[in-house]
Order: sequence, then structure tokens, then C-alpha cells
Amino acid sequence: MSQDFSFHLKKSQGPAGPRLGKITTARGVIETPVFMPVGTYATVKTLTPEDLQEIGAAIILSNIYHLYLRPGVETIQALGGLHRFMHWDGPILTDSGGYQIFSLAPLRTITAEGVTFRSHLDGSSHFLTPETVVALQEALGVDIMICLDECPGYPAPEAEVRRAAEVTLKWAARSQAARERPQTALFPVVQGGMMPELRRDQAQAMAALDFDGYAIGGLSVGEPTELMYAMVEATTPELPEDKPRYLMGVGTPEDLVEAVARGVDLFDCVLPTRNARNGMAFTTNGRVVIKNTMHGADPGPLDPACGCYTCRHYSRAYLRHLYVAREILAYRLLTLHNLYYYFNLMTGMRQALAQDRFAAFRRDFYQNRHQGGNTRG
Amino acid sequence: MSQDFSFHLKKSQGPAGPRLGKITTARGVIETPVFMPVGTYATVKTLTPEDLQEIGAAIILSNIYHLYLRPGVETIQALGGLHRFMHWDGPILTDSGGYQIFSLAPLRTITAEGVTFRSHLDGSSHFLTPETVVALQEALGVDIMICLDECPGYPAPEAEVRRAAEVTLKWAARSQAARERPQTALFPVVQGGMMPELRRDQAQAMAALDFDGYAIGGLSVGEPTELMYAMVEATTPELPEDKPRYLMGVGTPEDLVEAVARGVDLFDCVLPTRNARNGMAFTTNGRVVIKNTMHGADPGPLDPACGCYTCRHYSRAYLRHLYVAREILAYRLLTLHNLYYYFNLMTGMRQALAQDRFAAFRRDFYQNRHQGGNTRG
Repeated sequence: MSQDFSFHLKKSQGPAGPRLGKITTARGVIETPVFMPVGTYATVKTLTPEDLQEIGAAIILSNIYHLYLRPGVETIQALGGLHRFMHWDGPILTDSGGYQIFSLAPLRTITAEGVTFRSHLDGSSHFLTPETVVALQEALGVDIMICLDECPGYPAPEAEVRRAAEVTLKWAARSQAARERPQTALFPVVQGGMMPELRRDQAQAMAALDFDGYAIGGLSVGEPTELMYAMVEATTPELPEDKPRYLMGVGTPEDLVEAVARGVDLFDCVLPTRNARNGMAFTTNGRVVIKNTMHGADPGPLDPACGCYTCRHYSRAYLRHLYVAREILAYRLLTLHNLYYYFNLMTGMRQALAQDRFAAFRRDFYQNRHQGGNTRG
Repeated sequence: MSQDFSFHLKKSQGPAGPRLGKITTARGVIETPVFMPVGTYATVKTLTPEDLQEIGAAIILSNIYHLYLRPGVETIQALGGLHRFMHWDGPILTDSGGYQIFSLAPLRTITAEGVTFRSHLDGSSHFLTPETVVALQEALGVDIMICLDECPGYPAPEAEVRRAAEVTLKWAARSQAARERPQTALFPVVQGGMMPELRRDQAQAMAALDFDGYAIGGLSVGEPTELMYAMVEATTPELPEDKPRYLMGVGTPEDLVEAVARGVDLFDCVLPTRNARNGMAFTTNGRVVIKNTMHGADPGPLDPACGCYTCRHYSRAYLRHLYVAREILAYRLLTLHNLYYYFNLMTGMRQALAQDRFAAFRRDFYQNRHQGGNTRG
């Protein structure tokens, strides 16, 4: 257990119900449920740390796989650690790279000991173990690290899913044993594919190992949304109620609402940032594709209900102009807006949880989007 | 003459010597000599207006050719004008598009009446006259507009240079006569290729037409630097001392120092912003190519003498990492730094002029760069 990390459950509606909580780290307090913007290469694309603070980011996510390959963990360590390197002094969670190794790297080989893979950048060969992945994350000086896991695709044969879950469990225990830096919290990853029984078993076994928190992995990998929600439902009741739960790589605004309803506390996803760079904005009335001709003369903001910098100062017409002209400012303004939308959604959920009206919040959320569908297409 | 535009010459070292001045517009005061960052498509690439204000931009430049083609002047006008469109409330100067038509547009045809050209974007055909170009800039609501001019390339046959200068002079007179909006100042463009006599004649003829200020065009088009300086020297003494002089599209830090020494007040150039996006930073010790391996582990800032946001918070190692990973933040941080460097250079020149030590400033400027050459390569 990390000496600098604690979780306080402020409100809970049962073992698989929505929860309001607070994570305390040496680098700041994180009110949960929370969304973590993704900073793969030690930057949340297009934004500065000051931009992130201004819109209310409490914690960001980075990725050991990417940083290990470029610029290298030793380089970052020599420069004073990841926080100093990227000029972000709030909490950072790093993913172990399990998902990236199994989705990006060619020619990977898994043994009981660890995983050998080739870099997707230059083809160089690398060998990582649960122990080295803990050491790498500790060397970066992050606040929360994730155990190396094996993430099967979807669909995947039952035997492969079982084997991956078994490996992931063993690696979690080895990760726990390998810890040397008491400031960094450690979460294992609950795998188990689309098999509810296996997910339950995995969650129970991981819970017995007594981690600082628990990640739920292997979801949002192509399965139907309802199946994903069912897997979350199968997992959360088996996890300790007094520890935070992190659903990896999820998701859409709807996914966040549904997963919070099922007892998840932390989220990360590239959707708000990546979609921004592809010209798609999330709004209270649904999604806006900014390149559409209909926005070309529209003096209104992306979202009249939004208080972000972009909506306060720029018209849809200007944003469309920037996007069509491939101006970098378009990506930045849309990223700011989309993250603000995500943070605002989480704030809304936390307020509703604090006031015991989450069910009403969830109903209104869908109501607004439905109206949006009628008025904006 | 514009009712909202005035120039106050605070100090001058003779008709072709360095000058300290102040332009007053309805949207703000501009201390001269000044550098105007380029916002071709109604955005200074990568930056917000707040970023620009923070680093000290007093006026920005945009371009009627580009805005006319995309998103269209009528669109911007319907949205409340260029300032509101791009959320910049300081002064804006628009170039007439003369240079762009002659450098970007295929199949252009010049008659006494105006110029027919095809869009470089979609091949559509357009006809612009000096009168329509004034009307377009007035419709945008800009603070300073430029007369349509013909800009010959380099080298160019003497007859072509003479004919272009003659056309440009006639068009300047027609532009002057076409003005309808008293808030917008108008500058003609002195052409004349690399012929000092022709430049002198043009400058005198333009001066007789009594404009708000005067642009010097057709330079930095491929000619040797010394020839450019000689053309500036041939032009400035012929222009009214009580009107600002704007050297179009120039240039390097050295060019700015040399042109200020020869009596120029306003500058614009894509160099600081474009070079930033190409990974080149201007520093007091010379130029830094950030992708070079030597910066990969360097904990120091781009420029130890610089006080910009980028130099205060980020190492060369981090900037190199961002640049190599093609992260948008790299372009933004380098753009901020380069513009800060340019503004700082102009501030230094203004202070030196105010304290009657411009010659010493100019000597020190070269001294620093020479030292940089020895210590940093």
C-alpha cells in the first residue's frame, strides 16, 4: 500500500451502485468519479498544464509503453521525473503498457516471465516483466501505477481469455511484491474478457491481494456496449468498497454515466481529445461535426449551455473556418471544449451524487441528448 | 486620411535613420518600431489572442487574398467583422493580396483595370480591382489596409519592373479615391524592384498622394540581403518623415535591426511562426534546431536569457521530445517563444532609440550572435 495514497468513500449506493469519493495523493486531492485526460507522450495533445488546470483537470494519464520507447524512462528520470519533464504538478497515473503491447507492438511473445515485443516505432526488440514495469513507473515518479497485464482482443477464444486472466493475476502478485517506492500507489487490472464468472473470480482474487485501487481492463475493445456494462456489473460488487475502481479506456459520455451508475470511480479515454482533432465536439445536445457546411455562417457557439473558453469567445463559423483551413488552433479550441464538457459531466454527476439525485441526473442526461437529436440532427 | 489613425514621431535620426514613434488607432496604441505577427487565415497559427496579448503583440496582420477565398469576406462581415470573428480586439492590418496573387495564384492576367486570377484552392476564377480590394478590407473593418499592388519576382526584366511599378502607382491613386470608411487607414506599396532610381521616383510619387502611411514591397523575394538593404535605403528618405513606413514580409532578426537602422517602423514576416513549426527557435545566441540529438537530454531552456512561458517551464529535452513525437504542443511552445523573441528584440530597439544608444544596441546584437556561434554551433 502506498503511504501517500488514500481513498475516502463519501457516499455509496451499495456494492455495485454509484459512489462519491475522494482520493488523496501527495500531489493533490481528486474528487471522484473523475475523468483523466490522456497524455500519451507526456502531453495532453494541444494543451498546456495551465490549460488543463483552468478547465478543472485533477489528474492526468500517461503511458509507460510510449514513454519507455520515446524519449525513454532514463531520460525522463535524469530530467527530474515525469512531472517536472512535462511541467504538470498534479497527480499522474501511468498505464502499464499492457494494452499497448497487445494492440500496437508487432511480434509479441508472452511467457510466464514477461513479454517480448518489437517497438512499433523502429522494430527494436524489448523484454518487459511485471517487475521492470513497476520499476519503470516508479522511476518516472508517478502517483498511481498499473500492473502489467495481458489484454485479449474481442472476440477471443475462451481458453485464451482464461490464460490471459491467469497470467495477469500472477503478474499482479509479482508487481505487488516488486514495489520499492512507497509514494506510488499500485492498481492491478481485472481481466476476464466477456465472461462474467471469470471477471468475478478475478476481481475476488485481486481484492485478496490488497492493492491501493483496482483497474478494470479488457473492455471497450469492440464488444457491444451492453456487454461492456454487464462486465462492469459483474466486477464492481466483488471489489473492496473502500478502494477506488478505474475503468480503463472508457468511454463516451453515455459510457461514463452508465459506469458511474455501476460503481466506477476513475475513467480515461482518448475520445474527447482525439475526436476534437477530428472535428467532433460533444455538446449537451449531442455531437457536432464542425466541418459540416451548415456551421459555415453560424454565429452561435458550439454549445450555448457551455461556459468554456471556446464557447465564450468563438462562433461555430470561426471554428469551422479554422478546421477547414487545417489550422492548429481548431484542434486546440475543440480539445479544450471537449475536455471541459467531460469534466463538467463528471462535476454534474458528483453534485448529483452529493445531493442523492443521481437517478434524476441520469434521466435528464438522456432527455437532453434526445432533444438535441431533434433540433440539431 | 483616416480619422482614427495618427502617427507621432518621438525621435528621429534623420530622413533615413532609425526612428521611435507611436501609432494611435481606435483599437489601441502601437509603439514603433513594431513587429506584426502574421495571421493569414484569421489566426496567428497555434496561438489564441490572449497568448498574443500576453507576449506583447500590439497589432497583427491578416491577408485579404486568403480571407476572400476562404471563408469569404461577406461571411466575416455578416459575423460582425474580422475582429469579432477571430476574437482579437487590437489593431489589424490586412495585406491587399497583391503579393499572394502574384506568388500563389495560377493563370493571373493583369490589365489596367485590375487582375484576373484563379484560386490556388479550387481553381475558381476571380477579378479584383484596386477599388474592390479597398471595399473588401473596409468590409472586414480592419484598422490599416493596403492598396492592391503588382509585385514582380526576382530577378525580373527591367521593363516588367517598370510596368509593375507604374500599375501599382495608378492603382494606389484609385485606391485612395475609392475609400469610404474613415476609420480605416490606407497605405500604398512602393515597388520598383532592385532599381534605386525607380524606387526613389515611386516613393516621391506615392508621398505626393498623401496616405496614412507607406509600405515598401517587392523585397525579400530572393535578392541578396545587401541589395534589399540598399533598396530600403533608397526608399525611406523619399517618404514623409511624419508617416509610418512598413517593410512588407521582412524578415530575419538581422533584417529587422538593419531596416530599423534605415528608418522602417513596421514589419511582418512568417519567419518566427513558420520556423517554429519547422522546429527552429531564435535565441539571443543564434538559432536552435530542436530536433538535433544534442538536445535530447538537455535540461536547460531554449534560451537562458529568455523570459517567455516556454523558456520558464520547459527543457530543450522536453521540446525535442514533443517535436520528434509530432505533438502539436511543440509547435505552440516554439511559436510562443519565437514571437516573444521578436517582440523582445523590437522592445530592445525601442528602448535603445529612446535612450539614444541604438548604435550600441546594434553592435551588441551582432556580438551576442557571434558568441553564440562559438558556444552552441
